[in-house]
Amino acid sequence: MSKGNLRIVGIGPGDAAWMTPEASAIVAQASDLVGYAPYLARLPERAAQTRHASDNREEISRAREALALAARDKQVAIVSGGDPGIFAMAAAVFEAIETGEPHWRALDIAVAPGISAMQAAAARLGAPLGHDFCVISLSDNLKPWPLVEQRLIAAAEADFVIALYNPASKARPERIHDAFALLRARKGGATPVIFAHAVGRAEEKIEVTSLDAADPSRANMSTLVIIGSSATRVIARVGAPPFVYTPRSASGLPSTWP
Amino acid sequence: MSKGNLRIVGIGPGDAAWMTPEASAIVAQASDLVGYAPYLARLPERAAQTRHASDNREEISRAREALALAARDKQVAIVSGGDPGIFAMAAAVFEAIETGEPHWRALDIAVAPGISAMQAAAARLGAPLGHDFCVISLSDNLKPWPLVEQRLIAAAEADFVIALYNPASKARPERIHDAFALLRARKGGATPVIFAHAVGRAEEKIEVTSLDAADPSRANMSTLVIIGSSATRVIARVGAPPFVYTPRSASGLPSTWP
Repeated sequence: MSKGNLRIVGIGPGDAAWMTPEASAIVAQASDLVGYAPYLARLPERAAQTRHASDNREEISRAREALALAARDKQVAIVSGGDPGIFAMAAAVFEAIETGEPHWRALDIAVAPGISAMQAAAARLGAPLGHDFCVISLSDNLKPWPLVEQRLIAAAEADFVIALYNPASKARPERIHDAFALLRARKGGATPVIFAHAVGRAEEKIEVTSLDAADPSRANMSTLVIIGSSATRVIARVGAPPFVYTPRSASGLPSTWP
Repeated sequence: MSKGNLRIVGIGPGDAAWMTPEASAIVAQASDLVGYAPYLARLPERAAQTRHASDNREEISRAREALALAARDKQVAIVSGGDPGIFAMAAAVFEAIETGEPHWRALDIAVAPGISAMQAAAARLGAPLGHDFCVISLSDNLKPWPLVEQRLIAAAEADFVIALYNPASKARPERIHDAFALLRARKGGATPVIFAHAVGRAEEKIEVTSLDAADPSRANMSTLVIIGSSATRVIARVGAPPFVYTPRSASGLPSTWP
């Protein structure tokens, strides 16, 4: 039985003030840090701690490396931006466990959640996710595009707020345009749309627009896109960006409002 | 122009190790704490800090009280369990702003995100939210039940993972049974179902079952329910609870798996 362990750690969207004490403690105590190089670069350097940086596309091999280290008695933290459970490393680690060495299932493994990009983006704006919402990755690396379309249509027709992860890739820049065409055919043109770029990092930029006016090519690999429901509201302010929120009542403000 | 401010703060699901440094700093510096009494009770007592505790159902009046304090030059933190932007206080505050005193829009207002219950529950289990998912409140206090049904049906038919907030209330215990009947008519009986009770608190309890075997009356007011997609997997372990995860590939494990 290995004395090692594996912690799958969410370090949040970028701002250290959004990284939980649990995540910070795990990262401080680990003998080995495993992760995508830009995420590891956010963490303080420590002597006697080994870093295993890898490229973006190598999630399963990274997961296997982390499991193999834990099986060799290391205290391993595999780090993920945002929340590891939301379009990040945790699913890859559990895939690697299910399909890998049987003794990996007996390892001491736990997940430390983190603030995900949609939460950071929502916080900057108000409360756009304040009512029922769907979270969809536009990446079709691992799923057929018709399934993405089916989910976008279902989300639009049932009037969910929609958060889109991985809205753009260099390989498939047309996908976000296809997605917006589907949504425009099913939702009002005045529906609020948010492009939140690199929230919590130095280059943060947030744009609030409408479905009619939105230019989908504004989305890049560090953008989180939120599309409102029919109830989502924009509160204009003088000399400040607007607030965007989705009321707790699905039909907008209660008709009994004083 | 008021010198006050209002911070809408997420204190996470219960475990202090899940409360962000940003949230802790805001709570420490506030002159006035406003919130549902059990959430305020989690925070350390401080001299020279005024507490304004209220009951659960009073979200809008609580939001107005917080805004009025900020307008009177107070440093106000309105606290919320979980993430204030996900079925919590932020939407109520922005509703109160939109429908309230015009000068409230000029106040210094910001949201501090937190770990939401679905993330804490997912972390305990593995990665059940590892692919596209929908987040639905079953409360029909502020929305018509047919809209809840429409959204459950859309989520089931497009094969999303589903996270259910507010699955049960004393006033309407039948709603969770109605929801399960809808889902059972549309999803496989072996679909993994999770009842996560009071995650991060002393009374935490997590149950993993299947849609066929699930007893909806297990859900209470402190339960977060997760229902898998057709791809969601359960990894059995010897002498430990199973892992539950949803693979990054929508069709389950890649067919090219070695």
